[in-house]
Amino acid sequence: MERCDALAALTETPGMVTRTYLTPQHAAANRLVGSWMQEAGMSVSVDAAGSVIGRYAGRRPDAPSVIVGSHLDSVRNAGRYDGILGVLLGIQAVSDLHAAGRRLPFAIEVVGFGEEEGVRFGTSLIGSHALAGSFDPAWLDIRDEAGLSLAEAMRGFGLDPRTIGQAAHQGGVLAYLEPHIEQGPVLESLGLPVGVVTAICGATRKRFRVEGVAGHAGTVPMGQRRDALAAAAEMVLAIERIALETGVVGTVGRLGVQPDAVNVIPGAAVFTLDLRAEQDAARLAALAAVDRAVAQIAERRGLSWHGETFHQSPSVHCAPHLRSVIAEAIAACGLPVHALASGAGHDAMAIASLAPVAMLFIRCTGGISHNPAEAVLPEDVAVAARVLSGLLERLAAITDFAV
Amino acid sequence: MERCDALAALTETPGMVTRTYLTPQHAAANRLVGSWMQEAGMSVSVDAAGSVIGRYAGRRPDAPSVIVGSHLDSVRNAGRYDGILGVLLGIQAVSDLHAAGRRLPFAIEVVGFGEEEGVRFGTSLIGSHALAGSFDPAWLDIRDEAGLSLAEAMRGFGLDPRTIGQAAHQGGVLAYLEPHIEQGPVLESLGLPVGVVTAICGATRKRFRVEGVAGHAGTVPMGQRRDALAAAAEMVLAIERIALETGVVGTVGRLGVQPDAVNVIPGAAVFTLDLRAEQDAARLAALAAVDRAVAQIAERRGLSWHGETFHQSPSVHCAPHLRSVIAEAIAACGLPVHALASGAGHDAMAIASLAPVAMLFIRCTGGISHNPAEAVLPEDVAVAARVLSGLLERLAAITDFAV
Repeated sequence: MERCDALAALTETPGMVTRTYLTPQHAAANRLVGSWMQEAGMSVSVDAAGSVIGRYAGRRPDAPSVIVGSHLDSVRNAGRYDGILGVLLGIQAVSDLHAAGRRLPFAIEVVGFGEEEGVRFGTSLIGSHALAGSFDPAWLDIRDEAGLSLAEAMRGFGLDPRTIGQAAHQGGVLAYLEPHIEQGPVLESLGLPVGVVTAICGATRKRFRVEGVAGHAGTVPMGQRRDALAAAAEMVLAIERIALETGVVGTVGRLGVQPDAVNVIPGAAVFTLDLRAEQDAARLAALAAVDRAVAQIAERRGLSWHGETFHQSPSVHCAPHLRSVIAEAIAACGLPVHALASGAGHDAMAIASLAPVAMLFIRCTGGISHNPAEAVLPEDVAVAARVLSGLLERLAAITDFAV
Repeated sequence: MERCDALAALTETPGMVTRTYLTPQHAAANRLVGSWMQEAGMSVSVDAAGSVIGRYAGRRPDAPSVIVGSHLDSVRNAGRYDGILGVLLGIQAVSDLHAAGRRLPFAIEVVGFGEEEGVRFGTSLIGSHALAGSFDPAWLDIRDEAGLSLAEAMRGFGLDPRTIGQAAHQGGVLAYLEPHIEQGPVLESLGLPVGVVTAICGATRKRFRVEGVAGHAGTVPMGQRRDALAAAAEMVLAIERIALETGVVGTVGRLGVQPDAVNVIPGAAVFTLDLRAEQDAARLAALAAVDRAVAQIAERRGLSWHGETFHQSPSVHCAPHLRSVIAEAIAACGLPVHALASGAGHDAMAIASLAPVAMLFIRCTGGISHNPAEAVLPEDVAVAARVLSGLLERLAAITDFAV
């Protein structure tokens, strides 16, 4: 908890926590986290994408690795735990092994990624894509709000963008484990400190525009209107109903009307849909149901509509054998095992192309995240540390058996 | 129609029609309209509020007056007929009497008001309130967007704001008659060139704020949400249903959500209600029904809400005897008589405290107004001119009988 507070002090904006990718604060966080890694007996490096990596060797020099990681960058005006808690739990697990003078049949690499949030360059998971070998060189030309390209920012950070390919992980990776705060209210509502993640939900984001006819709020009789907002209101409620009925999660986060005047019937309405589900088939079926409902409402009201999908990502399922091991480690703490999907994206999504991935969720107060009010209970963090150590021990036992 | 085009050329913004109160273009419009009034045999003056007034004396110098009028100011990027058509029809009616060398038992005053729209100073009906003697001296301190007060603008126009009280009409006024384009689709949908107005609707404008809980669009399960937009969507549809069921006109013209991000459940929604009805009791009953519906929806969804009424105006009913005379004049043209309420506000609202008022509506294409596409058929304008002349003749006959 003290280390979370120390990292929170490394901020671009006094009075709040903001630490974006490749800033001096990011470099300072890497140095501080690197010093903790060294204390824990790890050799420390920063890869070509700016991720800090601590390595605790296994029993044999050619042993494969288990990676424990998450991110060190934050959103603007962030909390203290999103991302960094996963990195710090990894360091703590290694520190315990180091203190006991123990080595496992695999190396443990603890990674603190950058630009998971995508705040600076609008592209998320940059550090984890680089480690997975799926960094897209076109990203080097993306510019931040100040007009600086990613390549230029890398050079300013002491990196050579021409060597970005060298960030790709070499050697076998048995598993990627990411402890993370839940960022939602499920564990709290169940009274549980931790939970095992089944999958990171796939997502569709779509923009809808509904066109009616603007008119004078006083002179157009109700029966002669083509009110774009009334139609959009029906569509918002249809999305809510479809989500509830099909078990997906659907959100209309933005809605605007035109011309947006108190005495003018809205002639157009624009709104966004964010649809997420553990099963891609369920998400795509719900999306089709939304499109049908929008079309029916528009037709009944005599309006036209247009929809444009601007983001699609498939779901990433956590490896069943890793889920089982996490469940055993939770049960060994005397706790009920609750499995839940992650509605938010995580570095594990990018690493899934490199290795089997799994996530451990930690309860956060009120489900609040991306907010200064983000909070965790110290006793929940202690439980998560025990689960992670137990999990590594169990993986060691399996690996010993397999080897 | 040619005069409408000539007035449209007096604009502040080349390429569109914009003529706001006390501008050089307003002065030019007063001069042009004044010249037409003189041609029609009227003596012309500009009153202390900048309204141009043409007077065609009655048979006796002490005869009371009938006022025919509307406004010469426009909204920004306006059409060519809103307001000015009523003034020009008044001049035409007098011109016909003058050409025939006839006087009626009442004087006819044709008035072209300023700042009916309230575009420049945010307060509508300034010219008509001044004529009615209900000009509020506090308005003199209102400033336009450039920071000029109404008093300063009056002085720049050659008026003395200290004499504004002298604009109040002296002498008896038998009737105020306002021909005006409908600005709605009713007459067009019935295939009628003109209609007689029953009343100018009363209006309530209210702002609602609904407070829920913002949250991550991916991590908060559907069943644990307090989505302010979903609640507001239900409220928008409740307003539409209440309006349809109770025969009032209800519009949600503005709606905004906070924080308005694609991946955040809306924590708050703000929307406006514009409610209009011919009968004040019906409007107030519908308003109470809206409040009940909003309260029920908010309670069921666990949200808080707040409503703030920021405008209330009672309905103004047209004088029954004038409505009858207009109906006779329409029927005398061989046309069906259709009576309809005005959902929009007009100078007649302010003049109602001075004299009995009545309005004649003229069909406009597509119900479109406050828009460059505003259009009327020349043959409809000819019908309106005949109805206005017939109406004045009938009033003359009644007045003769009464005198």
